[in-house]
Amino acid sequence: MNHAAVVGGGVIGSGWAARFLLHGWDVTFFDPAPASAARLDQVLDTARRSLSALYDGALPEPGSLRIARSLTGAVAGAHWVQESVPETLDLKRSVLSDIESGASTDAIVASSTSGFRPSVLTEQMANPERFCVCHPFNPVYLLPLVEVVPGADTAPDTVNRVQSALAELAMKPLVVRREIDAHIADRLLEAVWREALWLVQDGVATTEEIDTAITYGFGPRWAQMGLFETYRIAGGDAGMAHFLAQFGPALARPWSRLTDVPELDKALIDTITAQSDAQSGARSIAELETIRDENLVGILRSLRANHWGAGELVNRWLQRH
Amino acid sequence: MNHAAVVGGGVIGSGWAARFLLHGWDVTFFDPAPASAARLDQVLDTARRSLSALYDGALPEPGSLRIARSLTGAVAGAHWVQESVPETLDLKRSVLSDIESGASTDAIVASSTSGFRPSVLTEQMANPERFCVCHPFNPVYLLPLVEVVPGADTAPDTVNRVQSALAELAMKPLVVRREIDAHIADRLLEAVWREALWLVQDGVATTEEIDTAITYGFGPRWAQMGLFETYRIAGGDAGMAHFLAQFGPALARPWSRLTDVPELDKALIDTITAQSDAQSGARSIAELETIRDENLVGILRSLRANHWGAGELVNRWLQRH
Repeated sequence: MNHAAVVGGGVIGSGWAARFLLHGWDVTFFDPAPASAARLDQVLDTARRSLSALYDGALPEPGSLRIARSLTGAVAGAHWVQESVPETLDLKRSVLSDIESGASTDAIVASSTSGFRPSVLTEQMANPERFCVCHPFNPVYLLPLVEVVPGADTAPDTVNRVQSALAELAMKPLVVRREIDAHIADRLLEAVWREALWLVQDGVATTEEIDTAITYGFGPRWAQMGLFETYRIAGGDAGMAHFLAQFGPALARPWSRLTDVPELDKALIDTITAQSDAQSGARSIAELETIRDENLVGILRSLRANHWGAGELVNRWLQRH
Repeated sequence: MNHAAVVGGGVIGSGWAARFLLHGWDVTFFDPAPASAARLDQVLDTARRSLSALYDGALPEPGSLRIARSLTGAVAGAHWVQESVPETLDLKRSVLSDIESGASTDAIVASSTSGFRPSVLTEQMANPERFCVCHPFNPVYLLPLVEVVPGADTAPDTVNRVQSALAELAMKPLVVRREIDAHIADRLLEAVWREALWLVQDGVATTEEIDTAITYGFGPRWAQMGLFETYRIAGGDAGMAHFLAQFGPALARPWSRLTDVPELDKALIDTITAQSDAQSGARSIAELETIRDENLVGILRSLRANHWGAGELVNRWLQRH
């Protein structure tokens, strides 16, 4: 497989296009918005610079890019069609149906959905066996994780082909064993998000203070070990069971407001927007993106040097190429 | 201030002792457990190696360490007493009361509590005006965040002195504007923890898969920008209000199981323990600690090179010393 069609060219779709192109795949790209091609150019520039820094300049020969004028023109002949249109069920179903009519019968059809279960998306599809959720993380050209979620009708061979292709793209497929709304990572993020909304609404913390609590505290831990491995260490030599015995009782305490759902009303939206402006408004989004990507490259390079996690994934990919 | 008493020498207390000592403070250390002194030695070795790597070898002249044989002997004459005993209310209150009787009247008395509100801890204290929660993050000698939570009776001058001292220790004080159980960061962590327990219990993901979802996905993002700044970027030039308009409706979906509290019963503890053993059991805790610290040093060094966040904090500290 070396030809991808990218349908939907927002932040995620453009990121996919950059990931495919800079790892040698040909890409046909379709988005009805007139500004999407310019946006893609900008993402490609950033991605080329970032990946070149991450890979010591050892980028493969890039694939060719074609901006298609129709969805049908984009998907014809593609080996992999990646749908990244906005997160609305009717729209996704309709676009997937159009993709299905235009794509080769042996093409992989994948959705970037962050929330919908594959079986919900494929209800009206004629060939759901070649469909799979492939949910990436922004920026897609730098972060390796892809949640691969097969639906009830997805063929095992589809999952195998998806995993191989993602490995060739230097990505990390995480096959999710049971489909649920929002898969794995976004459920964790959603939990943090709800709690953060309560903290802002109740005046306990501003957006900047919450971000400080993350980036100076547990954030750096999670770039390299997750929740469970970190807590295993905290438990010391007595192990995970000991840690759980210590930590367990806290669950019964009313710490978290998450037993309720905050209402994201106008007042809360205005508060968050104003706090976010105060926190980050001095920099444009483009500046913030550049800073973020330079930081991510630095972090991934440091993990490369330590042969660990996301860094070691890059090392192994570079050895193969 | 240059003399700290560390009361309670587990992972957190030993980490505090290392942080103080390696930034030039004298430390008196008290823990009734016979093994605590050996444990402290080991933490000090690791901390010295890690901080030396983070600071380009430019460590200040270390302070002197004295292992005290009694709590009273430890706190006498100290400018700052840091309590880090197990997270049990009665124990903490009783130890804080002992500290109060033994410490100088102008000493700062701080607690490492991750959960209790300061006003709850000080209910029986005679001089709560010099008390403050100072909640650090493991490993304390490397991660800069300290949640500084004043109680109803804490004097403003106490908060000022704590902030200055933490800056001298190359730490990042985050003054929490309203005391609530678990402060800020642990509320976010608790939210993730509960959701993760559901995912394991429902057989959606193993501990290793959840850790993969974190470390290859949003973890590296959070080492350098938090929840809100990351989402601001995702919203693009239309800004935070636009992002919230897109994201808001998802809150009403039943994505998160966090509207309920999982029971951490024996079956779930056994499942998590077995999965954690399968994930990380091939390495000892000491090996995992070494890997974690080398990774954290690498990440913080990469942020130093980019003059950003926790890395820039170190740069500024080194310039002053």
